[in-house]
Formats: sequence, structure tokens, C-alpha cells
Amino acid sequence: MNPLVKLAERAREVGQVRVYKKSVERVLSALLKSGDFWEVVDMSDLPVPAASAIVKVLIEEGLAFIDDTEDIRLTQKGMDLVRELGIEPYVDYACGACEGRGIPFYADIEFYREFLQITKDRPKAIRDYDQGSVTPETTVARVLFMDSRGDLRNKDIIVLGAEDDLTGLAVALSRKPRSVLVIDIDKRLIDFDNAIFRELGLDNARAMVWDLRNPFPPEMLGKFDVFVSDPPETLPAFRAFIGRGIATLREEGGVGYFGLTLRDSSVFRWREFQASLTTEFGVAITDIVQDFNDYITWDYHPETRAAEIAPVKRNPKGIWYRSAWYRIEALPGFKRWNEAISDDVFYLDEEGSTT
Amino acid sequence: MNPLVKLAERAREVGQVRVYKKSVERVLSALLKSGDFWEVVDMSDLPVPAASAIVKVLIEEGLAFIDDTEDIRLTQKGMDLVRELGIEPYVDYACGACEGRGIPFYADIEFYREFLQITKDRPKAIRDYDQGSVTPETTVARVLFMDSRGDLRNKDIIVLGAEDDLTGLAVALSRKPRSVLVIDIDKRLIDFDNAIFRELGLDNARAMVWDLRNPFPPEMLGKFDVFVSDPPETLPAFRAFIGRGIATLREEGGVGYFGLTLRDSSVFRWREFQASLTTEFGVAITDIVQDFNDYITWDYHPETRAAEIAPVKRNPKGIWYRSAWYRIEALPGFKRWNEAISDDVFYLDEEGSTT
Repeated sequence: MNPLVKLAERAREVGQVRVYKKSVERVLSALLKSGDFWEVVDMSDLPVPAASAIVKVLIEEGLAFIDDTEDIRLTQKGMDLVRELGIEPYVDYACGACEGRGIPFYADIEFYREFLQITKDRPKAIRDYDQGSVTPETTVARVLFMDSRGDLRNKDIIVLGAEDDLTGLAVALSRKPRSVLVIDIDKRLIDFDNAIFRELGLDNARAMVWDLRNPFPPEMLGKFDVFVSDPPETLPAFRAFIGRGIATLREEGGVGYFGLTLRDSSVFRWREFQASLTTEFGVAITDIVQDFNDYITWDYHPETRAAEIAPVKRNPKGIWYRSAWYRIEALPGFKRWNEAISDDVFYLDEEGSTT
Repeated sequence: MNPLVKLAERAREVGQVRVYKKSVERVLSALLKSGDFWEVVDMSDLPVPAASAIVKVLIEEGLAFIDDTEDIRLTQKGMDLVRELGIEPYVDYACGACEGRGIPFYADIEFYREFLQITKDRPKAIRDYDQGSVTPETTVARVLFMDSRGDLRNKDIIVLGAEDDLTGLAVALSRKPRSVLVIDIDKRLIDFDNAIFRELGLDNARAMVWDLRNPFPPEMLGKFDVFVSDPPETLPAFRAFIGRGIATLREEGGVGYFGLTLRDSSVFRWREFQASLTTEFGVAITDIVQDFNDYITWDYHPETRAAEIAPVKRNPKGIWYRSAWYRIEALPGFKRWNEAISDDVFYLDEEGSTT
């Protein structure tokens, strides 16, 4: 039997996570490039508990060790194994100009500058609501992406549960939509947005506090051309954010945007999301751009389950948490889902760890 | 009723195609940017028969006309309509450096140069097999994309029915896979590849003629880590290329790459493909990068159904046919499909037109 299969089996036992041979291979390939655990998570595109379990098993089997700077390094036995299996160091050809997004944030540099200026006193990400802000370059690229797909100008747009990124603010600031409604559970963000809307005279934009676990009232359903969201990756949260986002769409041809990460959910979970989108909800996926969304490491990182289960205590040095940018299109017969959601496993399950 | 809904209904009747309000909106937005029909198809991301039916209906309703240079232009009535509805010109923020792919072809410039040099006498795309070559920049970017996802080095790779793009040749030329098998129905391409493999001493690569309508023999099934393909967009061809590609994968964690276009199939069809991938075939979709693959307009364009049904006779001026680049990952329990396929509607159906 291939030794990676055995290592994957052991990691499944140790971490109670879904990993397979390829997951172990990706961790080894990442370890040939960096000894930093958070960079390894980033390069291997695995949930933190999965990457952590694999590293622990590599150490247990004498294939890796942690040096006194908390770098994870392969032992001679580990090096022999990667050589024998032909595993090579991770390589990255992401475009330096657009940071791999395909759409450079500086394509509208005035807009980028205004967004930076307006948001310099933005509220900090807090743990209560699984917040984590993307970089301003990400937020601006999101808006330009929407514009280049015909989903911005003179559209009625709802941004739901993603305002830690100030995406709704950026959408409104572009001054291109017909109307913008921002809803979020965090009153700090709603107040911040509304103050800026007033200050800049953006009369077509408003923000209001809403807990997405609750169903929308009828007057919110079927009213928008485009929704934007950034859900936690549990199945209940996916329904609450994306199912409810789809329910706000006015008609077929309506469009949804959201981030989904492989850092808090596995490719196994992704398949479930995708099957649900294309069969139950009746939408088509038109774009999945990996590593589009770069997240600034949240201040509360040391308190997260991720930090707790990591094989090292050293904090992340730079950006390590990224998500893919999805665009979906609602087709005739699409489903408007709007049930209540219980609190259980809303933010956290066996694959998630960054809450 | 919104006038676009009525126009969409009429286009459905005229063209016997699946279009909706949004499709009409996209054509109008494109017409504000260009009068060239093929550029309008490109910008509106619609199948040729759909874009053509919409343009014909716009003309019929006095909203557009064809001028004596064969440019499609909006009439005053058409301009009034777009103003009333708030439709604005198509915008494009694609990165100039990587051509919007996220991976720039020049990231390995020596490889790009060698590929250009080696392929300068490549066989031309012919109509018999629905061929159309992508640009060399596209082919090289495909290989770099695979490398950056850990799907190239020391992998056993099969490239099936995509050799008009010389993707298999490029994969072998990278000298990074363990083995490369190229199969294609076109003997000219197979001979071209094998001659170069011999000339360059690429002993781990070989090419052979195969008609993908036929099932693979058992010795081809479950033998590869990665497959690459570029199927025609009919449902039978999708099964023959992608279903059979998945069947060649050795194990869970195996990876597939292929192009899928919205020029020969609608977003409605895409949803069917995606539902089939994630439910029936048991794979997850990890990437969909729109407009990754740029196709050089084929010499036989004037003989295609696309040219026949277009509202103008003028030929395309530049690149207008693009496809998205898909990456999929086979999960535990994935299905190996390997049935025989009949000749009916293999290359062409109501949405396809470029064969």
C-alpha cells in the first residue's frame, strides 16, 4: 500500500476529519516550501483541523519535527519519502499584477483611494459573529468583478451578512447601483455604513441590523437583482446566507456572489454545496475563482479553535486565510428558501475552526 | 410587463433557444460597446443562436438596424429603451498582464518560447472533428495552472480529445509529469506529437489515435492521476469526454481539467453539467475561470452554422470564442462511466453552432 494512504487513514483517526491521500501529498509539498504552519494550510488548501492532523501524524511517524523556532521540518526519513514518491515543492504562478484574481483592484484607482480614505476608521473584526475582514484590495476587486459581469449598474443589490468586509459600503460608494441594502447582525457596522451614507449623500443606500437565522419578512423576498454574501461554511449557515440570498432575488437571471473557503470546509463539503445549489436551489455556477478573497488575520486568532488545535503556537505572519469567489445565476424555477435556522452548529462544525 | 421579457419571449420563438430577460439585457449592453456581432456574442456570454435570435428580434421591433458596414446599431427607439431601463455599456476590467486568467503565460518564459518554436508547423484546425485551437498563451497558461495546483509534477496524465490545442504536447514538453498519454481522433495531430516526442527524446510521452465515442479498454481505466480535455458542449459529448476522463482516474483525489464555453451552450446547460458532475459522477468543482481559453477563429468559420445563422455575413475580426477552465476533483465513491455513445448530436445540438 502507498504510505500516503496509511498516513491519511491515521490522520482521519487522529483528527476525526475527512482527508485522503492527496491531502497528505499537498501538506508534504507545502512543507518543502515553508515550515510555517499557517502557510502550509494556505498552500495545501485544507481545513485547519485536517492540515493539523496530518502534521501531527507526520511527526508521530518520525517524518517531520518542530524545530525550536516552531518551524515544521521534514526529517531525513521524511525527505526520503518525498523523494521516493516524487513529491516536489509547491509552486505558485499567481499573477503579480491582479494578485491572481483576474481583475486588478487598481483598474479604478480613484475608487480604490476613496474606499481607503472613507474606511480608515472602520470597526475591527470581532469574534462574536465569526468576522474576518478581507483586504481593501479584495473588496474593491469584488465590486469591479460585479461591474464587469453586468451586475452593478442600475441594479437593486442586497449585501447580507458580509459587512465586516464593508462590501455593501463599497458597492454603494461606486455610485452605480439603483439601490443598495446592507444587512448584518453587527450594529457597529450598520451604524458605520449609515453614517457614511448620510455624510456622502448616498440616498439610495441604507443599512439595517438583521440576524440571518430568522426568516426574511415577505417584503424582502423577490426584491433584488443581485445579492452578495460571505457565509460561515457550515451547512446551516450556507442555507441561511445563500438560500436566503437566493430568496431575495426578483426573478430568473438574478445573480448571487459569495466567498467559500477550503480553510474551514473540505472539498467534500464543497461537493455538497454545489449539488445543493444546482439541484435543490436551481441555480448555475458561472465562476469559482480560487484565492480571490484575502483575509487579514483577525485579532482574536489566538482564541480560536484553529490556534488551539494547531501543532505550533506561533501566530500567522501574513495572510494565510483565503476564499474562492463564487458567482451564481438563478434559472427559471429556482427555489426561494426562507426557513428559520436553529443556533446549533451555525458557526462551527468539525471542519471549521477559525470562529 | 418589462419590455425585455417580451423581447426574450419573441427570441425564444424565433430562435427556438433558451433565453431570458437577462440575455436581452446583456446583448443591449454589448451593443452599446460594439456593433460587431461576434464581439457582441463574446461580451454577452450567449450561445450564437441565442445572441443571433435576440439581435434579429431587436431589428424586427425597430430597436436596432444593420448599417452598410454590417455594424449592428441601436435606433433612436432602441437608445430610448436602454436609457429608460438604465442599461449601460459593457465594461471589462480583465487584467492586462495575465489576460484575466490569474496565471500569466510568461511566468515561465523559456517554456513559452520553446512551445512556440516547436509548434510553428502545427496542423491547422479542421472542421471534421469540431476543432478549434486555443492561443499558445492559453495552452501554456493551462500547464502553469496545473503546476500551481500540484497536478503536473510526477503525475500520470492523459489528455483526451483536446490535441487540436496541443495541450498534451505542452504537458509533455514541461518535462515534469511521470508519463503523458495523448489520445485524439485526428491522426495528423497524433503523428505530429509522436514525431516531436521522438525528436526531443520525451520517452515518457506517447500519442495514439482514439475515437472517444468508443468505450475505453479495461487497461485504460483507473490508470491516471490527472486528465485534461476540451469537449464539444453537447450532453453526449460531455459524457464521452468528461465521463470517460473521470473513468481513467486511478483513485479519489484524481483531478480533471476541461474547457466549457457559454458560446456553444447556455447557462441552463451548464447547470445540468454541474448537477451531473456533483451528483452522478461524484466529483467536486474547485475552479471555474471564465474566459481562460481564447480560441483562434478557425479557417472553416464561414462554413459553420454559426456563420449561417448570424444576422451579418461579416467574419469575426479577432478572438471572440472563449471558454471557461474547469478543475474537478474526484471524491471517494466517484463513478467510472464508460459506455458506448451513438453518433447522434455528438457535435451539434440546438445551442451549438461552431462545428
